[in-house]
Amino acid sequence: MVKLISTLGTTPGGVIETYLNLIRGNYEAEDPHPVKIDHIYVIRTDDEAVNFAWSLIKAISPCCESVKVELVDIPLNIKDIYSREDFVTFKQKISSVINDGDYVDITGGRKAMSAAAAISAMTKGKAHVVTSIIPQSEYSRISNLISKFRGMERELSEAGRGNCEPAAKSNLNFCELLSKDCRTVVLT
Amino acid sequence: MVKLISTLGTTPGGVIETYLNLIRGNYEAEDPHPVKIDHIYVIRTDDEAVNFAWSLIKAISPCCESVKVELVDIPLNIKDIYSREDFVTFKQKISSVINDGDYVDITGGRKAMSAAAAISAMTKGKAHVVTSIIPQSEYSRISNLISKFRGMERELSEAGRGNCEPAAKSNLNFCELLSKDCRTVVLT
Repeated sequence: MVKLISTLGTTPGGVIETYLNLIRGNYEAEDPHPVKIDHIYVIRTDDEAVNFAWSLIKAISPCCESVKVELVDIPLNIKDIYSREDFVTFKQKISSVINDGDYVDITGGRKAMSAAAAISAMTKGKAHVVTSIIPQSEYSRISNLISKFRGMERELSEAGRGNCEPAAKSNLNFCELLSKDCRTVVLT
Repeated sequence: MVKLISTLGTTPGGVIETYLNLIRGNYEAEDPHPVKIDHIYVIRTDDEAVNFAWSLIKAISPCCESVKVELVDIPLNIKDIYSREDFVTFKQKISSVINDGDYVDITGGRKAMSAAAAISAMTKGKAHVVTSIIPQSEYSRISNLISKFRGMERELSEAGRGNCEPAAKSNLNFCELLSKDCRTVVLT
C-alpha cells in the first residue's frame, strides 16, 4: 500500500480525480495498473483561498465520490512560496512524508511547490511523480463554480463531517467540482 | 561561464528579469553573487501563443534591456505537454543541454515543464534551479499588455533584428513587458 501526496493550490485541483484514476488504473504510464492507495496526504500553505479549497476536498469525499481512504491534512505555517526560506520549509516537509513507491501529485499549487515535490520524489525514496490535466474550459468552469460555495461555511463544515443534507438542501452539488475530462499522467 | 536555461510559456515570463537579476547578484540564495552567463537557452513548445512570447523576448533584448549574451531558441516539435510522451520529449531535450553549474529557470510554461526542468537540473549535472516571482497585479498587467503587440508582426520582426525604429514609431515600448518588481530565488 502506498500514499498519494498532493500539493494543493486555490482550486480542489485534481486531488480526487488523480486518486480515482490511479486506483482504477486509468492513467498514462509505462505499465498502467490499479494502484492500491491507503492515504491521501494534502500538503498546502496557510492561505485563505487554499484553506477553502481544502474544505471543498473534505466535502467532495463523503458527498460525491466515496473516497475509501483517509485524507491527511498537512498545513504549513507559511502563506505562500515567496522566498527561498519558504521553498526550503515546503521541501523539507514534503520530503519527510515521502516513502518508496508513493505517488507525488504536482498538479495543485505554485510552480515552486511542483518543483520541490518533483525533486523530493526523485531524491527521497523512489517515488512516482504524477499530474492530472484538465481542459482550460473545465478549469475556468470549476474556478467560477467555487464562488458559488462561498458563504456556505456551515454546509461545508457539515459535509466535511459526512453530513451532506444541509449542502443538498442548499442545492450544492460537490460532484460539479470534479472534471469528467481529467487525464492523469505518471511522469516518472 | 554558465548558461541560463529557461522554460517558456505564453508570456515573456521572467526570462530577461531572471537573467538581469542573476548577473547583478540580485537574488536570494545561500551565497548570492553576480553570475557570469554566456548564453540564454529558451526551451519551448510549438504553440502560437508561445511563439509570440518568444518573438517578444527577442525584441526586448535590443529595444529595452541590452542583453549582451546570445539568445538560443530551442523549439520542440510538440504543441503542449499533454501526454507522458510529450513529457519525455521535453525532459530529454532539456537534459541534453544542461551542464554542471548552469541555471535552470522554471518560471515559464506548464507545471510538467517546471517539474521536468527541476528533475533534469538535479539529475543531469549539478545545475541550479531558479525561479522569478512577480506580484499577481504585474502578471495581469503584462498579460493584458501582450494583446497590444498583436498584429504588429512587422515591427516585432524588425525589433528582433535589432531595428527598434518601426516599433518606436508605433509607440510600442518593450520595457513595459518587464516587471520592476521581480524577485529571483535560486532554489537549489
